[in-house]
Amino acid sequence: MHASDPCPSPPPAGSVLRRVERWRGDARRLLDDHVAEEVPVAFVYNDEPFAVMMATPADLPDFAIGFALSEGIVERREDVAIERIEELIEGVEIRLRIPAARAQALALRRRSMSGRSGCGVCGSELLEAALRYPPPVASDVRVSAGALRRALADLRSAQRITALTGAAHAAGWASLDGHLQLAREDVGRHNALDKLIGAMAAAGHDPGAGFLVVTSRASYEMAMKAASAGISFMAAISAPTALAISLAEQARLTLVGFARDDGQAVYTHGHRLLAVPDDAAEASA
Amino acid sequence: MHASDPCPSPPPAGSVLRRVERWRGDARRLLDDHVAEEVPVAFVYNDEPFAVMMATPADLPDFAIGFALSEGIVERREDVAIERIEELIEGVEIRLRIPAARAQALALRRRSMSGRSGCGVCGSELLEAALRYPPPVASDVRVSAGALRRALADLRSAQRITALTGAAHAAGWASLDGHLQLAREDVGRHNALDKLIGAMAAAGHDPGAGFLVVTSRASYEMAMKAASAGISFMAAISAPTALAISLAEQARLTLVGFARDDGQAVYTHGHRLLAVPDDAAEASA
Repeated sequence: MHASDPCPSPPPAGSVLRRVERWRGDARRLLDDHVAEEVPVAFVYNDEPFAVMMATPADLPDFAIGFALSEGIVERREDVAIERIEELIEGVEIRLRIPAARAQALALRRRSMSGRSGCGVCGSELLEAALRYPPPVASDVRVSAGALRRALADLRSAQRITALTGAAHAAGWASLDGHLQLAREDVGRHNALDKLIGAMAAAGHDPGAGFLVVTSRASYEMAMKAASAGISFMAAISAPTALAISLAEQARLTLVGFARDDGQAVYTHGHRLLAVPDDAAEASA
Repeated sequence: MHASDPCPSPPPAGSVLRRVERWRGDARRLLDDHVAEEVPVAFVYNDEPFAVMMATPADLPDFAIGFALSEGIVERREDVAIERIEELIEGVEIRLRIPAARAQALALRRRSMSGRSGCGVCGSELLEAALRYPPPVASDVRVSAGALRRALADLRSAQRITALTGAAHAAGWASLDGHLQLAREDVGRHNALDKLIGAMAAAGHDPGAGFLVVTSRASYEMAMKAASAGISFMAAISAPTALAISLAEQARLTLVGFARDDGQAVYTHGHRLLAVPDDAAEASA
């Protein structure tokens, strides 16, 4: 792969060995195989517990920063600092510091959201508080079909936890010529995207100057997080949901689904995907 | 398929048509295609809002009952009743009635869990409240490899929303001879399992007298919900996580991963999977 992202040495953090009996036809074999780790990760802002996510314990600083940005806890990278990451018996606790005004806004939000929740609408107990619609993305890009293919191929090569465990999703950030700049993995697709957004902030990648590729489906929350981070082009290997399409339409996010080597499906703002041949795309990149 | 479950007439609830531009090589075609719906679904117990889940709006009564059972809101089907299912602009609101003692327990739980959350640990803001370990499953079953294969084939045939949209997960319940009795789909894998558990309760299927097949990975939450519902055998088409294996070990749940036509991987309590040939398994069923 062409990623400039330094990879950890194998085996990657986030996978562990577990005993398994593998059956193939009539043959059975007992062996140790890699499985993905999944641990509770708690985010604590200014000493106030806020959320626990089930996540793969790798790239946790990226996760913490990306979650704060994609969920609108803060709007700018410089407004959030990691104080401590602590491994406890029950999981991992990440303590962060945000400006007092953001902490006050968060306290209000917590009050209106107290209760439980499921995927995609973390913590909402009231329907009217469940969905967030980010403002329209200000940036604009042009991506050639060839660059998209290249980024997808790069992303496959970057899936180190998945190669070992089969259990992780990946999110990748590509430059406009389709070269993968960063990739992050997690058992949760939202977490993989949060980690990527955090890694982009750490590396200084402008969300308006490249495009996003993800190995998962495109749910509402994936589109919401991408648009909230200022990304204008997202391609998912699998299907989108109807709500993700609606959000992408409103947020001026180009949403591509079923992104494969032999084609893709374009759902919103298709003017950003160009059919120019690879050579032309590379020349203009 | 051999399912006794009456299916809705096509196209199934939960999918809608959306305009898409499909690219194949140099060819582009504008068409309307089915995409999976994803809407906020709010659960309100005794007039107290509790949770909002992003879900596919099909089989909502099953979802409501199954969620209450798999999350321990109530322990018995007869302790929860659906009062009203209302389609609102923001999503769907499901109002349920539970005994006063359960509502009090829920209020305590809400207080200790106020805040936001992510997948798998709904609503927990404190690490120590994040994970639930259900008691060991009391039931026991024997499943032949042939019966498992048959159930997997049946489940593929039952994936009506996925066939149209490519975006849903399915959970299926099979009798011990491998014939699928029920199947449910959702954009969220946990929701598909909740819907199945609710449908099983409605149809009077004993969770100790069959086995579970799911099209997704086996995360902590999938194993937790299965064991909480009293299921002793779960086979997932994709990989398990390390935490799901730990939970399954403790809860005496047989956890099978990578369940395919040509084999499977057995992680816990493998004595329940038998290598007997199909004929013997059918004779003993």
